Amino acid sequence: RFLTSAQTTRDDGKKSRDFQQVHCGATPTEEMNGAGNLMDFLDEPFPDVGTYEDFHTIDWLREKSRDTDRHRKITSKSKESIWELIKSLLDAWSGWVVMLLIGLLSGTLAGVIDLAVDWMTDLKEGVCLSAFWYSHEQCCWTSNETTFDDRDKCPQWQKWAELMTGHTEGAGVYVLNYFLYILWALLFSFLAVSLVRVFAPYACGSGIPEIKTILSGFIIRGYLGKWTLLIKTVTLVLAVSSGLSLGKEGPLVHVACCCGNLFCSLFSKYSKNEGKRREVLSAAAAAGVSVAFGAPIGGVLFSLEEVSYYFPLKTLWRSFFAALVAAFTLRSINPFGNSRLVLFYVEYHTPWYMAELVPFILLGVFGGLWGTLFIRANIAWCRRRKTTQLGKYPVLEVIAVTGITAVLAYPNPYTRRSTSELISELFNDCGSLESSQLCDYINNPNMSRPVDDIPDRPAGPGVYNALWQLALALIFKIVITIFTFGMKIPSGLFIPSMMAYHHHDWIIFKNWCRPGADCVTPGLYAMVGAAACLGGVTRMTVSLVVIMFELTGGLEYIVPLMAAAVTSKWVADAFGKEGIYESHIQLNGYPYLDVRDEFTHRTLATDVMRPRRNDPPLAVLTQDTTTVEDVETLIKDTDYNGFPVVVSRESERLIGFVQRRDLTLAIKNARQKQDGVVSSSVVYFTEDAPQLPASNPQPLKLRRILNLSPFTVTDHTPMETVVDIFRKLGLRQCLVTRSGRLLGIITKKDVLRHMAQMMNQDPESIMFN
Amino acid sequence: RFLTSAQTTRDDGKKSRDFQQVHCGATPTEEMNGAGNLMDFLDEPFPDVGTYEDFHTIDWLREKSRDTDRHRKITSKSKESIWELIKSLLDAWSGWVVMLLIGLLSGTLAGVIDLAVDWMTDLKEGVCLSAFWYSHEQCCWTSNETTFDDRDKCPQWQKWAELMTGHTEGAGVYVLNYFLYILWALLFSFLAVSLVRVFAPYACGSGIPEIKTILSGFIIRGYLGKWTLLIKTVTLVLAVSSGLSLGKEGPLVHVACCCGNLFCSLFSKYSKNEGKRREVLSAAAAAGVSVAFGAPIGGVLFSLEEVSYYFPLKTLWRSFFAALVAAFTLRSINPFGNSRLVLFYVEYHTPWYMAELVPFILLGVFGGLWGTLFIRANIAWCRRRKTTQLGKYPVLEVIAVTGITAVLAYPNPYTRRSTSELISELFNDCGSLESSQLCDYINNPNMSRPVDDIPDRPAGPGVYNALWQLALALIFKIVITIFTFGMKIPSGLFIPSMMAYHHHDWIIFKNWCRPGADCVTPGLYAMVGAAACLGGVTRMTVSLVVIMFELTGGLEYIVPLMAAAVTSKWVADAFGKEGIYESHIQLNGYPYLDVRDEFTHRTLATDVMRPRRNDPPLAVLTQDTTTVEDVETLIKDTDYNGFPVVVSRESERLIGFVQRRDLTLAIKNARQKQDGVVSSSVVYFTEDAPQLPASNPQPLKLRRILNLSPFTVTDHTPMETVVDIFRKLGLRQCLVTRSGRLLGIITKKDVLRHMAQMMNQDPESIMFN
Repeated sequence: RFLTSAQTTRDDGKKSRDFQQVHCGATPTEEMNGAGNLMDFLDEPFPDVGTYEDFHTIDWLREKSRDTDRHRKITSKSKESIWELIKSLLDAWSGWVVMLLIGLLSGTLAGVIDLAVDWMTDLKEGVCLSAFWYSHEQCCWTSNETTFDDRDKCPQWQKWAELMTGHTEGAGVYVLNYFLYILWALLFSFLAVSLVRVFAPYACGSGIPEIKTILSGFIIRGYLGKWTLLIKTVTLVLAVSSGLSLGKEGPLVHVACCCGNLFCSLFSKYSKNEGKRREVLSAAAAAGVSVAFGAPIGGVLFSLEEVSYYFPLKTLWRSFFAALVAAFTLRSINPFGNSRLVLFYVEYHTPWYMAELVPFILLGVFGGLWGTLFIRANIAWCRRRKTTQLGKYPVLEVIAVTGITAVLAYPNPYTRRSTSELISELFNDCGSLESSQLCDYINNPNMSRPVDDIPDRPAGPGVYNALWQLALALIFKIVITIFTFGMKIPSGLFIPSMMAYHHHDWIIFKNWCRPGADCVTPGLYAMVGAAACLGGVTRMTVSLVVIMFELTGGLEYIVPLMAAAVTSKWVADAFGKEGIYESHIQLNGYPYLDVRDEFTHRTLATDVMRPRRNDPPLAVLTQDTTTVEDVETLIKDTDYNGFPVVVSRESERLIGFVQRRDLTLAIKNARQKQDGVVSSSVVYFTEDAPQLPASNPQPLKLRRILNLSPFTVTDHTPMETVVDIFRKLGLRQCLVTRSGRLLGIITKKDVLRHMAQMMNQDPESIMFN
Repeated sequence: RFLTSAQTTRDDGKKSRDFQQVHCGATPTEEMNGAGNLMDFLDEPFPDVGTYEDFHTIDWLREKSRDTDRHRKITSKSKESIWELIKSLLDAWSGWVVMLLIGLLSGTLAGVIDLAVDWMTDLKEGVCLSAFWYSHEQCCWTSNETTFDDRDKCPQWQKWAELMTGHTEGAGVYVLNYFLYILWALLFSFLAVSLVRVFAPYACGSGIPEIKTILSGFIIRGYLGKWTLLIKTVTLVLAVSSGLSLGKEGPLVHVACCCGNLFCSLFSKYSKNEGKRREVLSAAAAAGVSVAFGAPIGGVLFSLEEVSYYFPLKTLWRSFFAALVAAFTLRSINPFGNSRLVLFYVEYHTPWYMAELVPFILLGVFGGLWGTLFIRANIAWCRRRKTTQLGKYPVLEVIAVTGITAVLAYPNPYTRRSTSELISELFNDCGSLESSQLCDYINNPNMSRPVDDIPDRPAGPGVYNALWQLALALIFKIVITIFTFGMKIPSGLFIPSMMAYHHHDWIIFKNWCRPGADCVTPGLYAMVGAAACLGGVTRMTVSLVVIMFELTGGLEYIVPLMAAAVTSKWVADAFGKEGIYESHIQLNGYPYLDVRDEFTHRTLATDVMRPRRNDPPLAVLTQDTTTVEDVETLIKDTDYNGFPVVVSRESERLIGFVQRRDLTLAIKNARQKQDGVVSSSVVYFTEDAPQLPASNPQPLKLRRILNLSPFTVTDHTPMETVVDIFRKLGLRQCLVTRSGRLLGIITKKDVLRHMAQMMNQDPESIMFN
């Protein structure tokens, strides 16, 4: 596992040229006529049969077919005895059990992470004397000496400088606190990056691009392993606590998927079937978002809209259940101390006005522009990191960014605290009890209703002060996030995207309103702005709106949120169709066939298939004239993953497809266990082998490993249809015929390369099969 | 249109045996070599090419391919001139324009329907003297003489008996009011059923089963026509006002889909492509639910989970937009007078307790049982209606049910008023200002906080009285709804399902709590119970929960709602997999390939394909030896919808598939316009026709109408895979080959019949192709 850390730069592009992926759904009704006893060894599955190699694509149809076989076997057995019946019932319910376990574990982990981040973020500033494991807030809440007005200050909580020097004021104290803050931040991020590098290289980054790729049917071994789970959980806490501009939301999805993978291994139904496993992972992703935002329905929609590839209705219901359990577990742990599922619960229910739609749409435009800018800048930076010397010093990079972040963040109170605290404050409407600067409105001396009319009071100097600090925080966060996302530590961008850019509107709309009075609800604008920015970066729409209102409880604001999200998507799409996750998938060269890309070119299957015009002819086997030696030579001389089997080289009539791996294993087995199989033995793929005189070498019957239903298209099929078939059926390869004659083969990689070429991109950027 | 009213009993099952549907995506790169001028007439599309016959299935792949061709043409033209560029931009935006129009019209219609129903329901009881077009509530709100406590009574609003006799009390007055109430109800329902029968037979019923079938790719001409739209809108108002136990929600979906279809006809992009049209209809269904419940997100999810078949992400975003516009339009019309999108807005935010999950889950169990019972009873009744004399007197049936409903409903105040008013009251928490019987709690004499502690007060006699009446209402509604749903007038069952059964819990939980004090929020139980019942009937989960909380604004209650919905689905699924809509689809014999049915049998394509063992051989054409006369004979002698074309009868090697309709048209055209084409002319499907001596009859080249990429599978392909391919690619037919030889054909109907057979159902119940 430690050796595969270079997964993002691994280039087996040249090696894997022309790999022919194999579809072997051995049909179960094949009879065992003739020399049946010679084939007995084939009845036992070879070890590793039906598994895939690392960095290869799975065949969805085959996985589905294998699961149905398994299901049939269990159903027919269940009539035999009570015990088998119970086993079949357990099997039927195992899906729901896995969901329950995923929900419980990911909810618990999210709760632990929340508590730990809270504590460690405060640890950078000071410590609680009464109990060092208390965060600032917990410390002061448990203190009896705190009055309500001054709940942030209590004797038990001491800043480091105070503890060391005994003073609370003065330039020296400030500098010491500043210095220690930076030191803690550097320590945390150093620990995080080291742990990732040494123990689990896959634990870095947001994980969502890779999870999207895995869900689309790609194998990355260890990416969702136990080790990754452990390290990602620990380093996520460290990274967020270090103050880097990253959120824990994307990584929580990764953590939940690791949980899903972990529990899959408990049930052979899921551990032995890559297709079924991906159904569980889709649901786990929903649970991850559910705990990240306290938004179970948003989580399900996120999984549906953003990450999943194959999402049948059954998975929808299970995801729903997993998300529910996860959210409920988190609520029971109650890390935010408000017994709500909702992180940033807003209390305001002020209606909004039609005229406000204009600024909301403008916010959408801004969000779309920001999204485009962010994606371009971030991808440019990541490409530079991959191609230059920079990529060789990830630890140094992380340390440097942490250092810069800490140095710049400390002086500004809005960037010093944790991002979620800041969002929480920004989303809030000012009540009369709020003591923050943002709520420093001048109190009307002859105020009769003290709470209701706050929005009509003129703004005090604190507000203007806060605006400046927020504007600076905005610029700072924009720049630093571009560099942070994609570094080799766990990093998400939900919260940074949401956070950084939504107070922009403040500056605009202060002027728009009557001076001296706020006619708008600033929190609402913050919320809409956040949605617009996140929409621009990720191109979510429906799931985004649902997450936003689950997050804030603001059901009344669906229309503003929708307006901003849709505008943001339009604007961003005008500049480039790909969201941040798709861009990162492309950057890494994963074979991801996006359902959103439309293929509208006039090419035909014949233009894409191999062999090309001047290539050597297609490597095929014949059904009854090839010898064992011929097969072995073919396997040695080529690196194709499978071979079509034809009636004869002259007629070129296709009868099936055989997988390289199965072929190798079968011949090896036969040579060891079967008498009379020598190099000159003829390999038969037909139903009956002829009765040969005893002097001839024994024939080798291999019909069992032959896939008798390979997928074919004619050479005149438009590529558009071929792309559709690959996408919807999840094929690995497809054979091309003309009037019943085999002409060539198209693999998923061929399709992706052709699509890249048609979009004037480098086809060699698709690196995996 | 008037003659097709018997669509539910139409039985062309015998006639359409073995129809071979045709897939003709004429590939655009076919060159025009050889005798090109002879084929010029084929360059112009025949009239009606690419359309389908009524009650037939469309081919999704072909529609998609046609749309891409159209798109390519526009894109390449757009470079020619500014005008073409503008046209291409308009084309690109037309999807959004259609969504906007759908949203506006369906929002407006929903608002008008709401207002009209309100008025007409009250018209059964009395009239507003100041302005007869005012409903009871509007009448009294505008009256100045009303005090707040007695807002239901005002001098302007007079019951009919009061108006006629001048008295307000007495048995005679009661009887007169009762009689007039029944009379009005009968009048409304008679009008409704007559209008439907005379003008638009398709306007009856909920429409959702048919819309599901249409969206899955079936053609029912006129089902979504202008006439249906008009009549459905009018009769929906009449039917709901007549007091029948039906809701307007399902029909509103139908109305919205009619709007969608209407606006499709404005753009050739949608009107000429059945696939694209269905994308618009999916979005329209979302808009329909959006206005029915004021739940835009729930609408999108409903369309996704329940009605749509092909729902790409692009449609998701568009549906989202349409639903948004529709909800917003409705909000602007503001029929409920509360300026909220939400119909049954609940104000309570009481937290719920863990222990309450048990009753919630019990409610789910109850909902599931109720759903099963309802579906079985309703289907049994509908089958009886179809097969016995009963079906011949639809008007009489409607009148009878209306009469019974009115007679039984009037005496009970909970059934007399409109269902949505009742739900609104039941969902509500009792405030101290509520004067309804349900809130008749005994006031604590030394009450200090008048509003907060209402739930802790002991229940007064009014509550127990109300409980009895509600229980009676429950039983009555259960029974009458079974008979109502499926009658020949617009009828929906969302509201009835939601309504009738949720107060059951009351009776249970009154005992569960401390006597004399209500420790639970009754409204919450009503809400959860409603969700459970609706879930049991329709088997929705995610969309149901989203609709419920959008409907009530109770974001805190996601977990209870989810728990009840999931339990309800489990319980109901244990008794039968099909929801009410699928059951009605099956009852009507529509060819609906449900994505939820899993096919797990071990049959192969060879077991399903035609011709069967003792059938005559497959009717095929050869590429260069068939004469015009042969073709004409074949067309006359068979009723297949298409014919495979092979190289020769001996080799049986498939080269393509030709549609019956195209063949007929092409030969007719050629005989008329092309010299030398006579009965003995040879039909060529090859690229080049040989140069024949002038004495021979001129050849007829028909490669242009040949589909060169027919879909094929091998005879060994498991049916499970075939079903998957039909489902995911939306095929009409698929050819079966073995080693490149054509063996037979499988149509969608064959697949459906085979599935029915495997589930021990009557395969003849699948009636359409």
